[in-house]
Amino acid sequence: MAMRCKRCRQAAVIEVRRHNAAFCRDCFLHYVGQQVTRAIAKHRMLAPSDRVLVAVSGGKDSLALWDLLLELGYRADGLYLSLGIGAYSERSKQLCQAFADARGATLLVHDLAAEHGYSIPEAASKGGRSSCGVCGLSKRYVFNRAALQGGYDVVTTGHNLDDEAAVLFGNTLRWDVSAMARQFPVLEATHAGLVKKVKPLYRVAERETAAYCVLKGIDYVVEECPLVAGNTQMRHKQTLNQLEEAAPGTKHSFLFGYLERAAELLKTADVAALAECSRCGMTTQAPEDPASAPVCAFCRSRSRLVKTLPMAEAAHR
Amino acid sequence: MAMRCKRCRQAAVIEVRRHNAAFCRDCFLHYVGQQVTRAIAKHRMLAPSDRVLVAVSGGKDSLALWDLLLELGYRADGLYLSLGIGAYSERSKQLCQAFADARGATLLVHDLAAEHGYSIPEAASKGGRSSCGVCGLSKRYVFNRAALQGGYDVVTTGHNLDDEAAVLFGNTLRWDVSAMARQFPVLEATHAGLVKKVKPLYRVAERETAAYCVLKGIDYVVEECPLVAGNTQMRHKQTLNQLEEAAPGTKHSFLFGYLERAAELLKTADVAALAECSRCGMTTQAPEDPASAPVCAFCRSRSRLVKTLPMAEAAHR
Repeated sequence: MAMRCKRCRQAAVIEVRRHNAAFCRDCFLHYVGQQVTRAIAKHRMLAPSDRVLVAVSGGKDSLALWDLLLELGYRADGLYLSLGIGAYSERSKQLCQAFADARGATLLVHDLAAEHGYSIPEAASKGGRSSCGVCGLSKRYVFNRAALQGGYDVVTTGHNLDDEAAVLFGNTLRWDVSAMARQFPVLEATHAGLVKKVKPLYRVAERETAAYCVLKGIDYVVEECPLVAGNTQMRHKQTLNQLEEAAPGTKHSFLFGYLERAAELLKTADVAALAECSRCGMTTQAPEDPASAPVCAFCRSRSRLVKTLPMAEAAHR
Repeated sequence: MAMRCKRCRQAAVIEVRRHNAAFCRDCFLHYVGQQVTRAIAKHRMLAPSDRVLVAVSGGKDSLALWDLLLELGYRADGLYLSLGIGAYSERSKQLCQAFADARGATLLVHDLAAEHGYSIPEAASKGGRSSCGVCGLSKRYVFNRAALQGGYDVVTTGHNLDDEAAVLFGNTLRWDVSAMARQFPVLEATHAGLVKKVKPLYRVAERETAAYCVLKGIDYVVEECPLVAGNTQMRHKQTLNQLEEAAPGTKHSFLFGYLERAAELLKTADVAALAECSRCGMTTQAPEDPASAPVCAFCRSRSRLVKTLPMAEAAHR
């Protein structure tokens, strides 16, 4: 028997097992919008007058998010950070630009190598942090800094339910309680140098953001980043997919159970004092030794990378 | 090249990857004894004068534990609870008895069907809790009650590192924070009707208790309980084994990270008030409605089971 849409009883095009539901095209788009609206309202993510900066990668999640925010009427500009991953980065940028052009939206473009003197493939070959580690650090830094400089009220990222569950899973396996204490759909701007960060897609599963793009005709980069293969988060996603297969709803109850019952109890573990980086002026954790000058993780990582890349140093200045 | 013992440089018979070590027979037995001694000391599990009741199933963990406690000089009696699982239970009881006889130790034997009117296979066929659920509930009840009646100071169980990690994993996937708050190597007797419970093997991996028995010539039931196949805890053990394979030490850091960094923060979630069961007099959670008579989970489960087994009711009286 063909599946029927839970809302309108038309033929369904997608099943959402964890909600024991199936939807036709229009009702599915409505359902995704509803999840995002609920996320925004529940955690007071965005005010109607906010200037919103959407971190876009060209992938399904961030483009779906930008689309949803524009449809909901937010003043949302995109920011694409070029990571220098060859043709992959080029194609990602083009897709973001095409998305913006088709909607008359504004896309800011930053370039890691031009502005900071290294690309992610170069970082990957230098040891130290993993390339995913350097990439995440670089994005957080550039997005926050660009939002401050551009006068944006909030940065939104496309982290979906699967992303959030996988990160929580990794942190929980190590009981990295201070990282866990910071994992929340909203990170308030607790310091003048920090912009508020929100994750309006945390209630939407990965396959649902993909379906959203397909059904709305949004062209996105389907391939994973070529550097990501075999990374820890991918492995954790696979493990969670296995658990989900055996018991549908596992990911949902893992992430939501954490947010509802444990996050509050672990909150006290996030006790980092903040300070200004002595090199770039951005906000960072205060050093344990009050006599030493604070240097942020980005500047420390960058100086390690650029020291070994003398040609690139000139580009940064 | 043959592995060498980390302590004495003789040929090794077993590798312990998470400690980056290998041991010869004697040094391995020493290592296991050391882990147990450390567990006992760190959590003040046992005093030298304590009368100790060891819950034994005939499996590797509980017989290794009993052996270790006797070798360390504790006054340790065994308690075997017959669950009525046909030849499996018979063989388990015989092995416990043979172990006790060979050491001149005391084995108490209880019988679930004779004393309470149902066996675990009967419970398994009745719906309600899973058979593993009824079995765990019955054991906790019978061990606690027998220890109280026999004047024992403490009940020890053979839960090993893999058991504890798997239970924690299951509770964490659901963020059952009150169950998590109670998961600790020591449960103090917080009420006159509760006996202190301790898990001296929580630092020893499953394959290490098996190796301990093999190397000491302890005969144990090798087969898993025939009712356990495909249960949730087995599945969680498999998942953790996969994670351990990809990153040795995962189980250890998951369990120990919890105990060291998170248990304290979650402790406030264990807020159950205690009361006496109006049927059997044992300690139980106080009911939410103060006007209703407290009935413990064991008596509730038992009355459901025995109602459907009228022949068995007579046996209980």
